[in-house]
Amino acid sequence: MSDVYDKIMDLAKRRGFIWPTSECYGSVAGFIDYGPLGSMMKRKIENIWRHFYVVQEGYYEIECPTIGQEDIFIASGHVKGFSDKMCQCPSCKEYLRADHVAEGQNIAGASAMSAEQLSEVLCKLCCPACGEELGKVEVFNFNLMFATTIGPGSQRTGYLRPETAQGMFTDFSRLLRFYRDKLPFGAVQIGKSYRNEISPRQGMIRLREFTQAEAEIFVHPSEKTHPMFSRYADYKIPLLGIAQQLGNTDPLTVTMREAVDLGLVANEYVAYYLALTHQILTTIGVKPERMRFRQHLCEERAHYAEDCWDAEIFSDRFGWVETVGIADRTDYDLRAHERQSGQRFAVFLQYQTPRKVRQVRVIPDMAALGPRFRGKAKAVADALCACAPGPGGVTITLDGEEIEVPAALYQVREEEVEVPGEEVTPHVIEPSYGIDRMIYGVLESSYDEELVDGEERKVLRFPPQIAPVQVAVFPLMARDGLPEIAAEISEQIRQRGILAEYDDSGAIGRRYRRQDEIGTPFAITVDYDSKDDASVTLRDRDSMRQVRVPIEGIADRMRGLVEGRISFSEL
Amino acid sequence: MSDVYDKIMDLAKRRGFIWPTSECYGSVAGFIDYGPLGSMMKRKIENIWRHFYVVQEGYYEIECPTIGQEDIFIASGHVKGFSDKMCQCPSCKEYLRADHVAEGQNIAGASAMSAEQLSEVLCKLCCPACGEELGKVEVFNFNLMFATTIGPGSQRTGYLRPETAQGMFTDFSRLLRFYRDKLPFGAVQIGKSYRNEISPRQGMIRLREFTQAEAEIFVHPSEKTHPMFSRYADYKIPLLGIAQQLGNTDPLTVTMREAVDLGLVANEYVAYYLALTHQILTTIGVKPERMRFRQHLCEERAHYAEDCWDAEIFSDRFGWVETVGIADRTDYDLRAHERQSGQRFAVFLQYQTPRKVRQVRVIPDMAALGPRFRGKAKAVADALCACAPGPGGVTITLDGEEIEVPAALYQVREEEVEVPGEEVTPHVIEPSYGIDRMIYGVLESSYDEELVDGEERKVLRFPPQIAPVQVAVFPLMARDGLPEIAAEISEQIRQRGILAEYDDSGAIGRRYRRQDEIGTPFAITVDYDSKDDASVTLRDRDSMRQVRVPIEGIADRMRGLVEGRISFSEL
Repeated sequence: MSDVYDKIMDLAKRRGFIWPTSECYGSVAGFIDYGPLGSMMKRKIENIWRHFYVVQEGYYEIECPTIGQEDIFIASGHVKGFSDKMCQCPSCKEYLRADHVAEGQNIAGASAMSAEQLSEVLCKLCCPACGEELGKVEVFNFNLMFATTIGPGSQRTGYLRPETAQGMFTDFSRLLRFYRDKLPFGAVQIGKSYRNEISPRQGMIRLREFTQAEAEIFVHPSEKTHPMFSRYADYKIPLLGIAQQLGNTDPLTVTMREAVDLGLVANEYVAYYLALTHQILTTIGVKPERMRFRQHLCEERAHYAEDCWDAEIFSDRFGWVETVGIADRTDYDLRAHERQSGQRFAVFLQYQTPRKVRQVRVIPDMAALGPRFRGKAKAVADALCACAPGPGGVTITLDGEEIEVPAALYQVREEEVEVPGEEVTPHVIEPSYGIDRMIYGVLESSYDEELVDGEERKVLRFPPQIAPVQVAVFPLMARDGLPEIAAEISEQIRQRGILAEYDDSGAIGRRYRRQDEIGTPFAITVDYDSKDDASVTLRDRDSMRQVRVPIEGIADRMRGLVEGRISFSEL
Repeated sequence: MSDVYDKIMDLAKRRGFIWPTSECYGSVAGFIDYGPLGSMMKRKIENIWRHFYVVQEGYYEIECPTIGQEDIFIASGHVKGFSDKMCQCPSCKEYLRADHVAEGQNIAGASAMSAEQLSEVLCKLCCPACGEELGKVEVFNFNLMFATTIGPGSQRTGYLRPETAQGMFTDFSRLLRFYRDKLPFGAVQIGKSYRNEISPRQGMIRLREFTQAEAEIFVHPSEKTHPMFSRYADYKIPLLGIAQQLGNTDPLTVTMREAVDLGLVANEYVAYYLALTHQILTTIGVKPERMRFRQHLCEERAHYAEDCWDAEIFSDRFGWVETVGIADRTDYDLRAHERQSGQRFAVFLQYQTPRKVRQVRVIPDMAALGPRFRGKAKAVADALCACAPGPGGVTITLDGEEIEVPAALYQVREEEVEVPGEEVTPHVIEPSYGIDRMIYGVLESSYDEELVDGEERKVLRFPPQIAPVQVAVFPLMARDGLPEIAAEISEQIRQRGILAEYDDSGAIGRRYRRQDEIGTPFAITVDYDSKDDASVTLRDRDSMRQVRVPIEGIADRMRGLVEGRISFSEL
């Protein structure tokens, strides 16, 4: 009884999208290989992401190591808090995620329970691996970072990063200088992250090594209006806010302008990236009806976050899968690294015109203080300036000694001074994408089966932009000069930057099916007429309609089709 | 006394090419961050590599995890043999690479010495860190793989891969099926690899985490003629073969056809990828005079390799730096994984027409064997078929018992049979590129200083294809409608896929210099005339020549310039 997940994974393995890792040694759960087609598609999806974040938004990409020293993850809280609660089945010795065991047996709220609470709950439950009763098992915290040692002699602990984000924070000062000390600015990173999951059983959905695409956008804490908000102000997306979740109602589909005005989304920045995320997911081929944006409930939201949403994609096997997170993290991360490193992570922002501020200034009368306090006169003067002495004299403390200073020994003046600017710790808006989950979401959205002439046709309805092979080129027969014409067409298309695949083996119908199955949107067939009329048959994957088009200019026409500038029905 | 390395690193840090990693915590040697411009340039270089290997050669890319289970690296030999000899200075406790200490103090052949030999040599030398005599220090092997644990309970040892290559080997059977069971085929991978260097002190040249681009090309062991050899048959490159090294002569600059005919290079496959490598390095901007191809001497070449060459790039600081390795590794890797996994890594190759082979067949006379051997009759018959019995009878051994079988009990027939094909273990041709070293090579090749109007001009003479910013667009003044025109031009160029940067701050001369320093090949200035004549000034970075060009069609013109289809002097 295989569901769509099994069908997709079977296809993915057979055709070279995704393979279990190092199969010949028995694969390890939580790792996958992208095969030739999967890797091609992954790169195209990453480049679409780049198009939005790097080209459209103007946030440059950086690349930090995947191994980080311990300090980074002490600051980020991962050393202390990045763990799951686990236990070991006394019967079969399997390691289990304690909250998952409880949830799997209908215990509500397990993910929020303490180790002790879970221990109590588990003793009446059965091990999902062997079925024996768990009894009295110890539940303990297991840190999800992969640890290693940098250099010889166990000198330094290193961790494989659990997210790419920290690199943008530790590089903050360099980035700030690169962007010439102005706010807002952003940096992005696409790369591997690692989580040493206790017992991953969900294929591509829960990986121990996965690819993230994250943006960290540094904004003025009190100016969270996005300069380009108009781009998405009228864009509508389905929002499942806290109220909708608590009231058990459907998502609200509203424009981003409405979402901000209603207070459903905290600010324009968060709303902007919710809409942008919807656009990216739609562009790569996730069906809009399989998408929703769910706000974190108060208890699941990090205490420092001002607002946090997940873009979720619906999966027939896994239900709603969290795929993208969009959060306003305030100044939490920069402050944490300030505390750990002792360095300042702030921006000095010049006012457009210096601001006049009334300031109280203390002017000690050194001519009087000198004779009175001798060697201590300088220290007394400094202490006076640092406090706010009243008109009736003041008592200062110097090295534990209390000293009374009468009002005659200083003047207090209230002055107007010019302040050129202020030092600000930026807030961080963080859209964080799980690339592997996006790919799985696209596969499930694209997979289709239908009966054609009494036979089942499997087809991946990818948008042309992400299809690993974009055009198939077939000679009807592998003889009589047809292969030469087809190979020449294939080469021309490749030279225009479109991946064309030449195939001359098997019946033409079988060749179409092979391409349908890997999602190739267009197929060109060279037949005997082609030699006379210099034209070929062009077939559309989805409608299976065929039209006759001239060979001349075919590469440009294919490029137009793949890039969406021409539609098939116009031909 | 700063050399070009210091100057380049200073520029790289200042302008956002390369940064020390997590500076705020004190960087760890052997790790670097690519900043906004470095990361952009790295991606462009990787894409040029892809253009050659994926588009031109047709070898699909795959993506395997960076963490691998132990079996993989037992098979590859890394668990046992991937180590450096190290010692610890008894005075300053610094960990040292023993052979480097010896070589640094003019001891020849240190890299080939055993731990004992190095121990003896070192006792008379000084610690390069503190200057004290090392005395009797223990030299021991340190494995260079980063180790970690997969899953809870120390269940499984994992290693960060020291090269991307193993993924292509363990995926061999899947890849073979993807390529429909034919030879030759290839797969490539671009990604992170890791080596836990003992004491890396050479910046970008010796990293603990680095990017590799590797191709594994599986070929028929006795057919090492490259099907497209004509592409590079007349291509000339400087080859420093074994003979030239032993004879202390200059490299021979010969065509690849000559190199193969002379026996200087083992076969067409190796020669083909030597030439391709020269073309890639030239394309990304390494000066040809800083390039040579050095053959491994017999003692440095792995025992199983048929031939092995390094592409070396000359650095003012580091001398000749090994940047690319090209080897014919025979069937060593596939055989090693066969032994470790117990699986077969071979191709069944059908002959074009089945071959007729004469075969001797033994036909036991069961009617006679039955009564004579009873229960053992079947076993005797099998034993007869498995041996080559003579015409005078034969003695077979069954469970230790010797049994004589007279010739009357069997017939021997010589027959002609048809054999459809043969099973072959492919040989592997492996070109392996160090992307970080390529980037450093390009920086050193491109860096230039010159006096212009009495002032020093720093310029990175990047080829336009790899320049992080490809076109700068300036309004002469930040007013009077000039910024709007410049911004519009910048946007148009971006839409054509060329990275344009708008800059309106500072004097125009300073803006040119800023762009020269990051290698921007072209700058467009919008001035007051632009409003009247709808044209702008286009400046060439290298010659600093300026020409006037119309605004209309500027995006296409810039694309032509960047892609090299138009040259500046034609304008």
